[in-house]
Amino acid sequence: MKLFGGIEAGGTKFVCLVGSAPDKLVEEKRFPTMDPDETIAKVIEFFAPYAKKGELAAVGIASFGPLDLNRASQTYGYITTTPKPGWKQVDLCGRVKRALKIPVAFDTDVNAAAYGEQYWTPENHALDPFLYMTVGTGIGVGVIVNGLPLHGLIHTEAGHFALPHDWQRDPFPGVCPYHGDCLEGLASGPSLNKRWNQDAKTLPDEHPAWDLEAEYIALALVNLIYAYSPLRIVLGGGVPQHAGLHQMVRRKVQKFINGYVQSPMVLDNIDTYIVPPTLGNRSGVLGAIAMAITEHRLTLFNR
Amino acid sequence: MKLFGGIEAGGTKFVCLVGSAPDKLVEEKRFPTMDPDETIAKVIEFFAPYAKKGELAAVGIASFGPLDLNRASQTYGYITTTPKPGWKQVDLCGRVKRALKIPVAFDTDVNAAAYGEQYWTPENHALDPFLYMTVGTGIGVGVIVNGLPLHGLIHTEAGHFALPHDWQRDPFPGVCPYHGDCLEGLASGPSLNKRWNQDAKTLPDEHPAWDLEAEYIALALVNLIYAYSPLRIVLGGGVPQHAGLHQMVRRKVQKFINGYVQSPMVLDNIDTYIVPPTLGNRSGVLGAIAMAITEHRLTLFNR
Repeated sequence: MKLFGGIEAGGTKFVCLVGSAPDKLVEEKRFPTMDPDETIAKVIEFFAPYAKKGELAAVGIASFGPLDLNRASQTYGYITTTPKPGWKQVDLCGRVKRALKIPVAFDTDVNAAAYGEQYWTPENHALDPFLYMTVGTGIGVGVIVNGLPLHGLIHTEAGHFALPHDWQRDPFPGVCPYHGDCLEGLASGPSLNKRWNQDAKTLPDEHPAWDLEAEYIALALVNLIYAYSPLRIVLGGGVPQHAGLHQMVRRKVQKFINGYVQSPMVLDNIDTYIVPPTLGNRSGVLGAIAMAITEHRLTLFNR
Repeated sequence: MKLFGGIEAGGTKFVCLVGSAPDKLVEEKRFPTMDPDETIAKVIEFFAPYAKKGELAAVGIASFGPLDLNRASQTYGYITTTPKPGWKQVDLCGRVKRALKIPVAFDTDVNAAAYGEQYWTPENHALDPFLYMTVGTGIGVGVIVNGLPLHGLIHTEAGHFALPHDWQRDPFPGVCPYHGDCLEGLASGPSLNKRWNQDAKTLPDEHPAWDLEAEYIALALVNLIYAYSPLRIVLGGGVPQHAGLHQMVRRKVQKFINGYVQSPMVLDNIDTYIVPPTLGNRSGVLGAIAMAITEHRLTLFNR
């Protein structure tokens, strides 16, 4: 039985897993993100014994970005222009690959999460396009379309969508350093904390914050539905875990679309169209394991 | 030499072409869109002699929508819920196919246009994702991603994006019957005519209409860039033919993105990133011919 590695490379913590499926995990390690040298050394230290014994077939990395995902590029596998101190232009993929000497799959945390939610949930296998949106410290969107994760000039950055902003109802200017009141500027966890001047987790259910939050998330989902016409959207991250928020978002999506998308998924079955993650908060790292399995398969196929 | 048919099925007119490439066209016919029976009869009448002689290998249809593009569906190839009188639930693809007895490719007018602009322009071949946006009577977006046109629950409807609308600067409520001030509601040809109470073609260059129009188109393009991270965007249709509008749109796209997308295509080479169509106003029908060629190839491959 071959084992696979999954790495969730986050801005604040790293999660490393060894296993072959969500219910067949062998070892897990979590540690805070330090400078690149220290952090990558800890990653390699964790996986090296498995690689040395020939048990580890491949590793997948689900990373914070932006990333260079162009396989023809000189800097393929790098974290590129991140504001995170010390992490600009770091060859995360290459350094792991050279140390472990096994195939390494590399993608954004959100593409990995989309991949994981599709791969490990049989009823999602045939759904394409398939979307994963996370609303937490940041807002990100992962996309599987025509069978593959979406990459392009860079990768999807739909967390920064320009959206309607009713300044009378919500005079908050937003927190995005690039755009002010883009989606992430208006609806990320930090924007909630700052607008209401308290930790969003302490806002009671009846606080108007939640209706406004549902509004922005729903507007973003409407634009995602128009852009990709997805067959399912997984809505994950910390913020949508607030009780009732999923339901508020679904109702507003229907209200905004207003009958324009004539599909039973939107009109009648929206509870199974916009869904919480099957893998809880482990979509990214389990997606990385799924990516590693696919990378292993492709490597076998191409040799 | 095999010939191929292209059909651009529009809400006001149909264009039918026979040929094998943009510079190797044999015959063309245009006629106004009447009721489905009359219109489809004219289409078949045009192509039948070529099909009968065995010269026509396949036909492609670039159609107004919405369409059923799910090959597993009972109503694959139908125009579905269109408001156009008489055209609801019309089996356009099936009726052409049964009459001509050759393979028929079927897609939206905008996906066909994207396909045509990529297929017939060598420097676009390797660009994926590749986008075509038209701004005219309606606003539509066609997408080629991971090698194929994007279909999903339905198909892309990014013409209806929800966008920032500054009601103080622009108190016009929009013309979209579903959404009011969505992109199409604020920036389509009919919205221009209505907002300024004159034919948009007669608005002088220095009229504030154009700055506002460029603003909405640019906001839409920014959201498309965030969603798809495309390698090139073709901006076609009647409205962007206004002198200088492309340039205004490009500058505003850069202003709105504000350095967030760290790619030379956006930062330095935007003139080759957002471009007018190579095929002028024939992207759709020549895209239909390209679709026919691909359908023919696939048919050979699968038999």
